[in-house]
Amino acid sequence: MELQLSTWPEVEEYLKRSKLIVIPIGSMEQHGPTGLIGTDAICPEVIAHKAGDISGVMVGPTFSVGVAQHHMSFSGSLCLRPSTMIAAMNDWANALAHHGFTKLVWFNGHGGNIATINAAFSEFYHLRNYAPANNGERVRCTLRNWWDLQGIAELCAKLYPEGHGQHATASEVAVTYSQYPERQRNDPLTPKIAPVRAPFSDAADYREKYPDGRIGSDPSLARAEDGALIVETAARSLVEEMQGLEA
Amino acid sequence: MELQLSTWPEVEEYLKRSKLIVIPIGSMEQHGPTGLIGTDAICPEVIAHKAGDISGVMVGPTFSVGVAQHHMSFSGSLCLRPSTMIAAMNDWANALAHHGFTKLVWFNGHGGNIATINAAFSEFYHLRNYAPANNGERVRCTLRNWWDLQGIAELCAKLYPEGHGQHATASEVAVTYSQYPERQRNDPLTPKIAPVRAPFSDAADYREKYPDGRIGSDPSLARAEDGALIVETAARSLVEEMQGLEA
Amino acid sequence: MELQLSTWPEVEEYLKRSKLIVIPIGSMEQHGPTGLIGTDAICPEVIAHKAGDISGVMVGPTFSVGVAQHHMSFSGSLCLRPSTMIAAMNDWANALAHHGFTKLVWFNGHGGNIATINAAFSEFYHLRNYAPANNGERVRCTLRNWWDLQGIAELCAKLYPEGHGQHATASEVAVTYSQYPERQRNDPLTPKIAPVRAPFSDAADYREKYPDGRIGSDPSLARAEDGALIVETAARSLVEEMQGLEA
Amino acid sequence: MELQLSTWPEVEEYLKRSKLIVIPIGSMEQHGPTGLIGTDAICPEVIAHKAGDISGVMVGPTFSVGVAQHHMSFSGSLCLRPSTMIAAMNDWANALAHHGFTKLVWFNGHGGNIATINAAFSEFYHLRNYAPANNGERVRCTLRNWWDLQGIAELCAKLYPEGHGQHATASEVAVTYSQYPERQRNDPLTPKIAPVRAPFSDAADYREKYPDGRIGSDPSLARAEDGALIVETAARSLVEEMQGLEA
Amino acid sequence: MELQLSTWPEVEEYLKRSKLIVIPIGSMEQHGPTGLIGTDAICPEVIAHKAGDISGVMVGPTFSVGVAQHHMSFSGSLCLRPSTMIAAMNDWANALAHHGFTKLVWFNGHGGNIATINAAFSEFYHLRNYAPANNGERVRCTLRNWWDLQGIAELCAKLYPEGHGQHATASEVAVTYSQYPERQRNDPLTPKIAPVRAPFSDAADYREKYPDGRIGSDPSLARAEDGALIVETAARSLVEEMQGLEA
Amino acid sequence: MELQLSTWPEVEEYLKRSKLIVIPIGSMEQHGPTGLIGTDAICPEVIAHKAGDISGVMVGPTFSVGVAQHHMSFSGSLCLRPSTMIAAMNDWANALAHHGFTKLVWFNGHGGNIATINAAFSEFYHLRNYAPANNGERVRCTLRNWWDLQGIAELCAKLYPEGHGQHATASEVAVTYSQYPERQRNDPLTPKIAPVRAPFSDAADYREKYPDGRIGSDPSLARAEDGALIVETAARSLVEEMQGLEA
Repeated sequence: MELQLSTWPEVEEYLKRSKLIVIPIGSMEQHGPTGLIGTDAICPEVIAHKAGDISGVMVGPTFSVGVAQHHMSFSGSLCLRPSTMIAAMNDWANALAHHGFTKLVWFNGHGGNIATINAAFSEFYHLRNYAPANNGERVRCTLRNWWDLQGIAELCAKLYPEGHGQHATASEVAVTYSQYPERQRNDPLTPKIAPVRAPFSDAADYREKYPDGRIGSDPSLARAEDGALIVETAARSLVEEMQGLEA
Repeated sequence: MELQLSTWPEVEEYLKRSKLIVIPIGSMEQHGPTGLIGTDAICPEVIAHKAGDISGVMVGPTFSVGVAQHHMSFSGSLCLRPSTMIAAMNDWANALAHHGFTKLVWFNGHGGNIATINAAFSEFYHLRNYAPANNGERVRCTLRNWWDLQGIAELCAKLYPEGHGQHATASEVAVTYSQYPERQRNDPLTPKIAPVRAPFSDAADYREKYPDGRIGSDPSLARAEDGALIVETAARSLVEEMQGLEA
Repeated sequence: MELQLSTWPEVEEYLKRSKLIVIPIGSMEQHGPTGLIGTDAICPEVIAHKAGDISGVMVGPTFSVGVAQHHMSFSGSLCLRPSTMIAAMNDWANALAHHGFTKLVWFNGHGGNIATINAAFSEFYHLRNYAPANNGERVRCTLRNWWDLQGIAELCAKLYPEGHGQHATASEVAVTYSQYPERQRNDPLTPKIAPVRAPFSDAADYREKYPDGRIGSDPSLARAEDGALIVETAARSLVEEMQGLEA
Repeated sequence: MELQLSTWPEVEEYLKRSKLIVIPIGSMEQHGPTGLIGTDAICPEVIAHKAGDISGVMVGPTFSVGVAQHHMSFSGSLCLRPSTMIAAMNDWANALAHHGFTKLVWFNGHGGNIATINAAFSEFYHLRNYAPANNGERVRCTLRNWWDLQGIAELCAKLYPEGHGQHATASEVAVTYSQYPERQRNDPLTPKIAPVRAPFSDAADYREKYPDGRIGSDPSLARAEDGALIVETAARSLVEEMQGLEA
Repeated sequence: MELQLSTWPEVEEYLKRSKLIVIPIGSMEQHGPTGLIGTDAICPEVIAHKAGDISGVMVGPTFSVGVAQHHMSFSGSLCLRPSTMIAAMNDWANALAHHGFTKLVWFNGHGGNIATINAAFSEFYHLRNYAPANNGERVRCTLRNWWDLQGIAELCAKLYPEGHGQHATASEVAVTYSQYPERQRNDPLTPKIAPVRAPFSDAADYREKYPDGRIGSDPSLARAEDGALIVETAARSLVEEMQGLEA
Repeated sequence: MELQLSTWPEVEEYLKRSKLIVIPIGSMEQHGPTGLIGTDAICPEVIAHKAGDISGVMVGPTFSVGVAQHHMSFSGSLCLRPSTMIAAMNDWANALAHHGFTKLVWFNGHGGNIATINAAFSEFYHLRNYAPANNGERVRCTLRNWWDLQGIAELCAKLYPEGHGQHATASEVAVTYSQYPERQRNDPLTPKIAPVRAPFSDAADYREKYPDGRIGSDPSLARAEDGALIVETAARSLVEEMQGLEA
């Protein structure tokens, strides 16, 4: 069940049986020479929608631009200041809490978002400690990264024993190819596996260290059919976790 | 051409031939008993994507949550504080300008966004007046509402001589049905045509005046095939306008 | 009745019979080679004070600096960032609401303010949706532009069938001359009627397109006596509208 | 010379001979049972305008609402959050600096503003330390309270050997009566001289301690003719000081 | 009693007998060629801790970085934007008020902080006027500068009849030497007594006027034993004042 | 070498041989019935100062209040809103970068700070991507938690094979006892080892789950002599790491 494809009476009805909503959250940023800029938004969105189809859980709109300052030397990357992102996430959370949602699961597709998402949660609790609303009912924000779901690490290790990598990974690129098969690219990359180097700081530093944008990965391994399998596995794990939260 | 479905080298290539990007911007808010909460985001997104397909113009990700405080008494509506929206739009605009985009066309699907979008533009120019970047190259933000495009008003008047309305309009609902035909609802509504009353203030006032959310409309008239025609017409008009801006 | 010329017991007394206040809101910005920088603040202030004299309605202090980034290439223009203006207007509105005013009529003299004023209203309602004060009594913000008042368009068309224009208009300049007759200038301008061109973006762009600051106007037509007539007409229309709001 | 009554070419001309501008800054707040809410804005405005008439110094628009949280339990008082006031003052200052003003004299009428005005100056310097503009030309903000001008303390002591007070003082009320003689009130007050008590904290505390709003004063002593004398004296002192700053 | 050296049950116990807390607040900024950068934080901290030892009053952690933009041309100086400092002080104050502290005494070591501290208090009261918490119990913020305590001015005048000065004063440097005797420096400075000049504006202006950072002082006079005496005297005065506030 | 105990010429001298500074960053929050509220600030401060003594590295003042909303139901805990903390950390970082420090090592004592510290780094890089200062020299922010230093985990496992825990850990409490031996408490706690439960959300939830504040720990095991050993080990590891960063 997608919030954006629901009517307000349907949401009202849903809230009688569940207070939980899954909000995909990602980023718009370069994913190497063959990966899509929207990769980190597409992955959680696709998995969450699949999970919604399976289980009927409510899925919110995708919070699609995140913290990606380190990718800004590559054309097309977008980013929010962390302080803007905290403000925007709190606006979303307050609106959802106002309607009665009390379990807000932010389902994340971008490692670079984790810190700011958690900071946004602290901001949310900070303000509610002082001014509880919702008739005092407790509202909980939860962060879940899709790659941490049950079964995903194992599946990726099996699919890509070498060259899975850290950014523009074979698995995330495969997920996007499963949605947009016409975008699949499997020409060999140079170097085949991108380097892993010392930590980066700003955007210029990132580009010097990772000239084509990849970190440690060989996304030429990515296949749409692998992506479909990952989506299926992740969606089932997500459903199971959500059932745990509902209980 | 969609930014989120492009690679960074493709964006770099695009910028050699055009500095223009269309950014769909909408809202998540109730659209009456049968309209989708995502209506105002879906409409500009669908039209912009179609225009991108026709013309090759770059289309950014959809800025999907806007100013909708007056809909907050209906379940599922989300909103940003205008000051948050100004901050977020400026983050997007600064990132795009950083890459060399100089014509940012915000393609809007929600009347309630117009004021804040224009305020965000003034904030953008304000800061750039004092600290011009982009080697001093001028960056222009433009607002375009889909319903103001050439030919749309006439088409809507023809399709819905009565009951088109102001919120949850027959035309916007038809556009969403053209994308999600399984969501089409044509059961009669009561009253058939929603009332138009004095201006509303806050969310409670809105709900009192417009108990089912509609203003002056009869969205039971909406048909997917009409929506497809509206999308087609709007997309062609948008392409034409963008060609004018490119010239 | 002017707030700044009242004592606190007089305001307390006023609030027993009316909850309405008119707040003139304008801008400090160039108005062509012969128009005053304060034009957009002076016009609503003068009209509102006259309306207050006629009817006894409370008139607040003038919010005198607004959104004028596009005039910043002309000496003496001032402007607020829209986000600052939203914050300041909300501080004023919260204070007035705290005292029991529930009908806040922002009486505007500057087209460039409209977007940010409406954004400020949304911010106001946004915060009150979540944290209603005033014992829950509804507070309404209304925007009224002086040139939109009943009878003004007709009067201006009659007074200035040609050369009324869009910025540094003959009518607004005439209003200021009615207050400051010693500032009246009627020497011919070159060109007689300023051009109207494509929309502007930032301050540099505005100055290139409108080198002396006027848009489409011939303010050499402005006469103090016309201004007095405009003020009289506008004040009477404002009184009538306020009586409607009081009812 | 008033900025709001000048044209942009006149401001441009002025800047060739002087970089100094005086900006009256005040407050809208209760001034006891007989004092005007606008007292603290009117006093610096009237004195600055008189000084402008004498000397030709440029006088900006009045920044009329300030820090007055402690007066909020009296009807009609307005106030800005200090953080809003810092933002707004910096917007004004940046605009003036952009045009080439380098000596910004904030001419203050309200003791409660002093802290925030100085904080705003520090914010201004803070940002300019890191990002100097104006071709690196130094811009200086100066605070001047009207009651601290040469000769004023002596004059007030002579006029009001008893009952001058600290808030709603005989002298400030007299200045407003000199401008608005029809508002003069000389009925005896009870108590004749308002008490002076321990420092106050918030608005409720202030009202408990000073039930009619006055602190230590007997404004029934205020006479329009005294006010005129104070204005004259203050204006001459201000002119002299400005000449010192110009040198 | 130091908050940072207490356990939470001890704080809970303390709040049964007192609602008062002293919060040292200072600055990190140059103090001339021989004074410590932490001088303005060390002084109030040392005195407050001594007062806490004598009387058992609760002493909070030191708010150690303040408003010091004018010292930024000297290596090692740190500073907060006044708007940041207002936000941070309010976060501290809200937390303390949440626990039941109602008398927050900010014990200050830096003249440059005074304005912003008072602005922060107004921000605190502003927000509490509209949304009182603590079951409506009144919370009071008080500012106390250590050099204004009973007996200090006299003691400094006696210890340093010449060369006490205004910045990097002999007395404040002596206080730091009493804590860090190994840092004592008594080599003659050139000039012996630093100049006092016209008021400074930004950091560059300060450095031009005061090339070694001192204003009017000869800190080579500072001796650890004098500092110890000052600390003792100030601590006793502070205890006495706090007992007055408790009463 | 401590920044707060240095003079500005000493800092200037230091910057000729090193651009690195270590900034201890902690929290003020409950640490169980026997742990100090300042534990998370004291630990990194003590270790950093020891490392500074050994190696001569510059150590900044301690950023002592952090993100601790979840501890707010225990008396004495303080916290910053994450957005305030981001602003304050950026003020510190900009000041340090202004003086020429390019390696800012934030040495952290509180797990709850990690997210917001990393968000603050992204904010820092975000702004510098667009407006690089320091003559374009790259400035790097690094986060280092003291418990992650080489050798610490092993040492703690050896010292406390059982009951080390997650909050109010035996090791952090021991470090504080090594500094404040008079505060050592070794009475048995009930339960001996605090529970570990499902993740907490807001402050009320934390208190319900962890009624005395501890998570999984038995701090009655903490001994001053163990703390001294931990400090020694951590300081040596930190020195080694800093030498690596300097290289």
